[in-house]
Amino acid sequence: MSSIKVVALAGGVGGAKLADGLSRVLPPQDFTVVVNTGDDFEHLGLRICPDLDTVCYTLAGLANPSTGWGRVDECWNAMESLEVLGGPAWFRLGDHDLATHLERTRRLREGKLLTDVTREFCRSWGVGPLVLPMSDDEVPTLVHTDEGTLPFQEYFVRRHFQPRVTGFCFHNVERARPAPEVLDALRQANSVVICPSNPWVSIGPILAVSGIRDAILKANNRGRKSVVAVSPIIGGKAVKGPAAKMYMELGIEPSALAVARHYGSQSSGGLLSGFIMDQEDQEQADAIERLGITPEVTGTIMTSLQDRVELAQKVLEFGMML
Amino acid sequence: MSSIKVVALAGGVGGAKLADGLSRVLPPQDFTVVVNTGDDFEHLGLRICPDLDTVCYTLAGLANPSTGWGRVDECWNAMESLEVLGGPAWFRLGDHDLATHLERTRRLREGKLLTDVTREFCRSWGVGPLVLPMSDDEVPTLVHTDEGTLPFQEYFVRRHFQPRVTGFCFHNVERARPAPEVLDALRQANSVVICPSNPWVSIGPILAVSGIRDAILKANNRGRKSVVAVSPIIGGKAVKGPAAKMYMELGIEPSALAVARHYGSQSSGGLLSGFIMDQEDQEQADAIERLGITPEVTGTIMTSLQDRVELAQKVLEFGMML
Repeated sequence: MSSIKVVALAGGVGGAKLADGLSRVLPPQDFTVVVNTGDDFEHLGLRICPDLDTVCYTLAGLANPSTGWGRVDECWNAMESLEVLGGPAWFRLGDHDLATHLERTRRLREGKLLTDVTREFCRSWGVGPLVLPMSDDEVPTLVHTDEGTLPFQEYFVRRHFQPRVTGFCFHNVERARPAPEVLDALRQANSVVICPSNPWVSIGPILAVSGIRDAILKANNRGRKSVVAVSPIIGGKAVKGPAAKMYMELGIEPSALAVARHYGSQSSGGLLSGFIMDQEDQEQADAIERLGITPEVTGTIMTSLQDRVELAQKVLEFGMML
Repeated sequence: MSSIKVVALAGGVGGAKLADGLSRVLPPQDFTVVVNTGDDFEHLGLRICPDLDTVCYTLAGLANPSTGWGRVDECWNAMESLEVLGGPAWFRLGDHDLATHLERTRRLREGKLLTDVTREFCRSWGVGPLVLPMSDDEVPTLVHTDEGTLPFQEYFVRRHFQPRVTGFCFHNVERARPAPEVLDALRQANSVVICPSNPWVSIGPILAVSGIRDAILKANNRGRKSVVAVSPIIGGKAVKGPAAKMYMELGIEPSALAVARHYGSQSSGGLLSGFIMDQEDQEQADAIERLGITPEVTGTIMTSLQDRVELAQKVLEFGMML
């Protein structure tokens, strides 16, 4: 597989797991992960990039395997002392994790781009593939809810995604530009993988950045390009997080089919050439095929490292076949 | 002793120890500590106030007893991870300590004054006496050396006070104002104690803030006010830190007498009515008396908590006698 170039679009934990699988079957120079930064925010004066950190920590083997965020073998001394002072401890920052945010914020204030800081961090952590934030511009996701408009982390962490969603806004996205590295990677890719991340608030912000959708769809000079999504919805439920709840609140029955429709087929102006769904949803394969998207049914739950690698291999083989 | 009001001027560890002793023999409402903020600096985007924290941590029983800075039972996970990233780890910030700097910086950015943030922190930590930064304005100490002018922490921590000192600058001091609470406390005091802190870079910046010297010297409406300094130099050496080295580099033989001369007698336009020196230096008592300053000889090394309390009692009794 050394001649194909792959770009994965990823959000949090599901995306990070598949990206990790892909990183184990692809040479690092042929694999790039483009990560959602819509959930970035400033907290305690620090620039926090939750999805970016989840992807980097996962690829570095530093991720906490049980939480889906933060670092393994983490300690909580700073939070403990912050609580004594009555500081804002609702967003949990572990002691090791704090170093990431402190040093990132320091380098950004020096004038460095998030893309470059991320590359430097990945080098320090021994991460091989290129991990790219979707943009160096800030595009904070706002969640419109029945309780008003909330910044993403207020909705997601502080309110445990309980408010009822009525829509989303990717603030400033019309002015944001992808880093040149993102466009280069997408243009050179033979295969673009949309990871099993939340279509609304993980993949949605990436696709909303001007130029990214075009770069995904544009044929490269080495022939056809496949665009394959892996469903984050299995049996009508999200493996993790609010994706299914969001579909329901927006009046759409959550399903693999709904996700395939969400991204759309290339033949009808959408993105996908192929779609991978869990075997639990195989009865939806025909309907997906009727959308003009080639379906593939396989096990998509990634419990073990072996699961990540097997799903990654499946995704790559399927993409090459399209 | 419940009717006397005492203000101590303090820098780092020596000052903090005597302030701790005083806090154990005086009712909290009668004791105020005014602390040097000339060694404050911004590091990793955080406002760090080393002397202020040393005093507060000491009064709160949170200070590290062996280092003279930082917190007891501290952990170093954040620094460890910062070093992996190649971040600036020369100034050691423990995990618990980080919470102080994060939350202080957050509140200052919200527009609060350092005086108010410090008071809030002290309430959280259970510190009884009022601890006041000398000013809410930033007055960063610059150290002129044979290797150029260095910000204080660069000189003190990063370079381990090795460069040869030629002078000091308290940047912006001409524009700095003491907080009203500092002037109120000094005006009401019956006794002002200049703690055994570095005269050049701990006490010097406090005295350089416009209005503080006058407020110390002005008689209050309850009669005479004593101003007593405790020598930080014993047997020609500083108990801790570069005070003696600085005297030498500036062409002055370091001694208790030199410190007494440094502050001067009230009768000759200086500050002191009394001076406490270690018994090791008792042969200098006559010379100090000839300066117009009443000398007192006692044990001034504070190894144990009992030492702190005994020295505090001695200082108060001596001050009341003047």
